[in-house]
Amino acid sequence: MTIYDQFFSHAAQNMKESAIRRMGKMIASRGDVVSLAPGYPAPDTFPWAEFREIAASLLGGQDGSVLQYGPTRGYRPLLEEIAAILEGREIRVAFEELLVTTGSQQGLDLVARVLFDPGDVVLVELPTYTGAITAFRNVQAQMVGVPQEADGVQFDALEATYQRLRLDGCRVKALYVVPNFQNPTGLLIGLEKRRRLLSWAADRDILIIEDDPYHDLYFEDSATPSEVRSIKADDADGRVVYLSSFSKTLAPGYRVAWIAAPAAIAQKLEIAKQSEDLLTGSLDQRIVHEACRSGLLARQLPKLRRHYREKRDVMVGALRRELNDTVTWPDPKGGFFLWLTLPDQLDTDLMIPRAVDNGVVYVAGEAFFVAPSEQGRSRGGDGRRTMRLSFSAPTKERIEEGVVRLARTVREELAAVSVSAPAPGRAER
Amino acid sequence: MTIYDQFFSHAAQNMKESAIRRMGKMIASRGDVVSLAPGYPAPDTFPWAEFREIAASLLGGQDGSVLQYGPTRGYRPLLEEIAAILEGREIRVAFEELLVTTGSQQGLDLVARVLFDPGDVVLVELPTYTGAITAFRNVQAQMVGVPQEADGVQFDALEATYQRLRLDGCRVKALYVVPNFQNPTGLLIGLEKRRRLLSWAADRDILIIEDDPYHDLYFEDSATPSEVRSIKADDADGRVVYLSSFSKTLAPGYRVAWIAAPAAIAQKLEIAKQSEDLLTGSLDQRIVHEACRSGLLARQLPKLRRHYREKRDVMVGALRRELNDTVTWPDPKGGFFLWLTLPDQLDTDLMIPRAVDNGVVYVAGEAFFVAPSEQGRSRGGDGRRTMRLSFSAPTKERIEEGVVRLARTVREELAAVSVSAPAPGRAER
Repeated sequence: MTIYDQFFSHAAQNMKESAIRRMGKMIASRGDVVSLAPGYPAPDTFPWAEFREIAASLLGGQDGSVLQYGPTRGYRPLLEEIAAILEGREIRVAFEELLVTTGSQQGLDLVARVLFDPGDVVLVELPTYTGAITAFRNVQAQMVGVPQEADGVQFDALEATYQRLRLDGCRVKALYVVPNFQNPTGLLIGLEKRRRLLSWAADRDILIIEDDPYHDLYFEDSATPSEVRSIKADDADGRVVYLSSFSKTLAPGYRVAWIAAPAAIAQKLEIAKQSEDLLTGSLDQRIVHEACRSGLLARQLPKLRRHYREKRDVMVGALRRELNDTVTWPDPKGGFFLWLTLPDQLDTDLMIPRAVDNGVVYVAGEAFFVAPSEQGRSRGGDGRRTMRLSFSAPTKERIEEGVVRLARTVREELAAVSVSAPAPGRAER
Repeated sequence: MTIYDQFFSHAAQNMKESAIRRMGKMIASRGDVVSLAPGYPAPDTFPWAEFREIAASLLGGQDGSVLQYGPTRGYRPLLEEIAAILEGREIRVAFEELLVTTGSQQGLDLVARVLFDPGDVVLVELPTYTGAITAFRNVQAQMVGVPQEADGVQFDALEATYQRLRLDGCRVKALYVVPNFQNPTGLLIGLEKRRRLLSWAADRDILIIEDDPYHDLYFEDSATPSEVRSIKADDADGRVVYLSSFSKTLAPGYRVAWIAAPAAIAQKLEIAKQSEDLLTGSLDQRIVHEACRSGLLARQLPKLRRHYREKRDVMVGALRRELNDTVTWPDPKGGFFLWLTLPDQLDTDLMIPRAVDNGVVYVAGEAFFVAPSEQGRSRGGDGRRTMRLSFSAPTKERIEEGVVRLARTVREELAAVSVSAPAPGRAER
């Protein structure tokens, strides 16, 4: 019998399954469950008829390159459309600075491989996006979390963390942020703070990894286009590695996203991508290109903003009605997510079985916090009493129903915890 | 100004651009060039009309999951079709052993990340596939080459190399082979040697990475289905990590391939893939699934065997006519490639500018050899006077024309070398 443990690399030994992906498997095996867990876009917003026409036209057979291998950087006309989109975000880039990626997840993975050796430090917001945690962990980077406040990462904590790490002899290479409608908190970094972060990164000579998939999904009643201005737009110094995607605005099944980075970094990313998958799917790139070129993407955006805003309203309304006295959250001004904080005696991870019994699932906040060992001394809470709810995929009726089931779950859990002996902190369990 | 070199990981510092991809860029910028360089399938063999129908039907909008996120392992019905394909190759696997990958390139990359720490040894055939070289190099594995003979890797050299590495204190984890119509040599490992390799790997407790994209593309006049029997088919011990792909039999633009590996390894590969791209494109997987389910793939295979065999005949015929007295090659019994050895005084890498001037390109053999530092003492030649020709993509007329241009190039280069002072070895240039 072959013993496999001896064959695994250190990276593989440290790999952990994504909590969100694991949750996806759990749901798949159940009956009537309202899933507020995965941040899926709503498939009924996808422009099916237009996609069908585009695909039929591309697959006419006149152009063999539609299904052929192609350049690792991406299909050139798509890169041109991406440059135009960036221009609309006031980001001006040369082609040497652009790279198509197989979803933003590949973008994060490539950035991690190109920048981090084992032990190198990347500063992250607390909580932060699980996909970034996975990518950084897989190259054995050391993630150190910095707590957030209403307008994003706490500046004093950031500087104090940085200084302490420097004293400890650590190599701090980058700060990772999701400035717009962060996954998982839905928070928006304030404009003034964005400028400060950029000049701070220059002073400290570190890079900023700016992950911006929700840029266009601001809700017009509570955020303006100027409030989502990318940090990259003011990056005169070439210090920002910028990621964005078509997954939330066209469809995630195409796996088409991009990176804009200083040319020297983009070149390394390209070589890393040669190894990871040679190129992003040709048909996917061509469909996305045609969706951009024809104006389909531009027509989608106002519809999507309205669609997700209305769903946000339904979720916030239901939470106010069902749980207002018990839980707190910041109202999302865009994006897909709402971040809930429960009473101190609850533990959202331990509550999952009861939630599933009640026919609802969420992602326990823990998944978005880096583990204590990865987090050093700047531990900003482990998210024990927090959860991420997504309002993007379910219908309004299902969101209502999901919140009702969640409220029932919380009430039952509170009752169960209060009858048990003097509320134990988690450390004692 | 930001200085980027300081930010790169060791892996990134060691990354090298693929010679084949670089060649692709060179061709793109030229006029009338016959490209015998990239191993592209012929797009006129793609079943365009059927693909168009399948895509139109999938994009009807009735099933939102066609463009949605999905499981990292792959679309379950596609995994079932893959299991059936493997059954046809006498490989019996459980679902826990299967994983869809974004092309076989991702498969190689995932395998490299999961198995190799910097310095771990992977034994490779000399010459070997460039995509594997890239994947292994990017995790800083130490590649050690073993020369090949007519029926594949030389067994005595393999054992001697292994023993020497063990004495040197190296950790030899795996042997990488392309047993069927190897890229770049077109060679086929003999059946008896396959069995010996498997039992040798068990005795030495190392894994075999079997890369088998050309399995179905044997040429019926010179190879039988039984001759392509996969090593994995006899893997009772769970020692073989098997990769195959739809890129050569349906179309590479879809980026759909797979790995069959012992469950413990497959699980690690899945987690590594969560970080690399979350999932392989959903529409791509669905199209490929439908092509398998409907019998389209099965109907393609005999056509493809005939198509590529005829092109092989054209290339071999033209080489015999134009260069028979000057160059040698083993006749390919399947696949896409023909491996040419030129007279000793020539250097195929240095000859490229003249070839381009004559309107033809190839891949210089060097690209398929691991660099001296990566190869230790088992250096089996650097391929200086070899080249890979691909007969898969060009039309028969273009293959003819390409060989005529190549013959002119070789004659001119021979004349140029003979008039220069006593033929210098490359070491002296």
